[in-house]
Amino acid sequence: MHSVFYISDQTGITTEKLGSALLVKFPQLEFHKDSFPFANTPTKIGKALLRVRNRYLMDGHKPIIISSMINPELRKMLKVDYAIHLDFFEAFIGTLENAFGLTAEMAEGKVHSIGNEEKYNHRIDAIHYSLDNDDGVSCKNYDDADIIIIGVSRVGKTPTSIYLAVNYGIKVANYPLAENDLLSSHLPKSLVPYHHKLFGLSIEPERLQKLRTNRMPGTKYASLENCQMEIAAAEKIMNTCGVPFINSNHKSIEEISVAIMQLVKLTRQF
Amino acid sequence: MHSVFYISDQTGITTEKLGSALLVKFPQLEFHKDSFPFANTPTKIGKALLRVRNRYLMDGHKPIIISSMINPELRKMLKVDYAIHLDFFEAFIGTLENAFGLTAEMAEGKVHSIGNEEKYNHRIDAIHYSLDNDDGVSCKNYDDADIIIIGVSRVGKTPTSIYLAVNYGIKVANYPLAENDLLSSHLPKSLVPYHHKLFGLSIEPERLQKLRTNRMPGTKYASLENCQMEIAAAEKIMNTCGVPFINSNHKSIEEISVAIMQLVKLTRQF
Repeated sequence: MHSVFYISDQTGITTEKLGSALLVKFPQLEFHKDSFPFANTPTKIGKALLRVRNRYLMDGHKPIIISSMINPELRKMLKVDYAIHLDFFEAFIGTLENAFGLTAEMAEGKVHSIGNEEKYNHRIDAIHYSLDNDDGVSCKNYDDADIIIIGVSRVGKTPTSIYLAVNYGIKVANYPLAENDLLSSHLPKSLVPYHHKLFGLSIEPERLQKLRTNRMPGTKYASLENCQMEIAAAEKIMNTCGVPFINSNHKSIEEISVAIMQLVKLTRQF
Repeated sequence: MHSVFYISDQTGITTEKLGSALLVKFPQLEFHKDSFPFANTPTKIGKALLRVRNRYLMDGHKPIIISSMINPELRKMLKVDYAIHLDFFEAFIGTLENAFGLTAEMAEGKVHSIGNEEKYNHRIDAIHYSLDNDDGVSCKNYDDADIIIIGVSRVGKTPTSIYLAVNYGIKVANYPLAENDLLSSHLPKSLVPYHHKLFGLSIEPERLQKLRTNRMPGTKYASLENCQMEIAAAEKIMNTCGVPFINSNHKSIEEISVAIMQLVKLTRQF
């Protein structure tokens, strides 16, 4: 068992992502993880270090501290002889200072704070927009959409829409291609004026069957035959009408979202 | 103008977060940013490098490449003399290998892929749960909630709920304290059985007035007097009934979310 401490004087979100990306490369090890966000005073750091020291004594080897401390004085406190310390500001900021010929202003800008209020409000609006325009509840706000995701039920439209809104400030509507839509080989009428904003998600029938079975086991809705039929019909519409689409099959919502952003050349809005 | 290239053989999400956290420390500089996610072949890397080289010629100084390349061969390609290269695997993986006495298995585990399917499905369920239980639409699923966020309209319940679901796989319901709830000094009846799951958001009246004015300018709803009254009544209920709450005033949804996770000792569910 290895102990890992995420310590940050901010939210620590970036630190934890960094840590996860690194630790996953040691699949043979087990990790005990502990987070100390907002550790922005010597007292809070001291409290965290007490826990680090206890784990050191328990484990019999040095815990890993992964930190992103903006305050250099607090960062120094983490250099203890009973832990291994990685700090991402320390690792990179010097290289950038040399490259730019400038000293970093460590007191400036916190990446997960509100920052620019106008942009932040835009992001909050995008979240509300995407919730209000989930699942085709209404087409009357499609003028405001940055993108409209279409696809059959349970293909991943909602999680993708929400992810894009939360993490990129994109206004995403989504529209489910339902039984009556799939009987036609044309786009649903309400979508035609927004053709240029449409993006499709598709999926393998077997995966869809699994997802739908989790939700409604034993129904026609979840049957492989019905999944095959719906996907074929949806792909036919998208191919016929020139709607770009990707297969969400083995992709996480992060992977789907980044692929969409790249394909339709959307950029982060905050 | 400085050019920054994010290059990753995965989504590049961590890389961009890391880069933003670093670049924000140089507020006097302007950056031209370009992303190359899924750059997982020599051809794609070559294409990215062509753009890097063009920016070098245009800018007259070296662009910054910030990368997280799992594949060491592809990573090596980024060591070009016309750019400054930061790679976060390169920076940290050696230290961890030494600490663990192991060689990192770079082909293993991608932090933004589906990974463990059961956990991934739990996360998707959490997103659907939080959407379905937004804004007090129904209390009948509160048994399944990990946490129920309460507060007056526009205090930040919805974005926080959605953020927690998307990024931590937490099932969050939220319930708006509306006019009739605020007339009482007790909890709304439907919330009483879930007392132990409640967490409150509050806010300064001036900030709430601003947020509500953006939404419905000139209404009683948005007036400072009404905001003051609603917040006072909500805080009275939460204080009387022992519901923990925080002030969301100058906090981003990331900061609110991490503070909640820390206060109620919730942990990431995927």
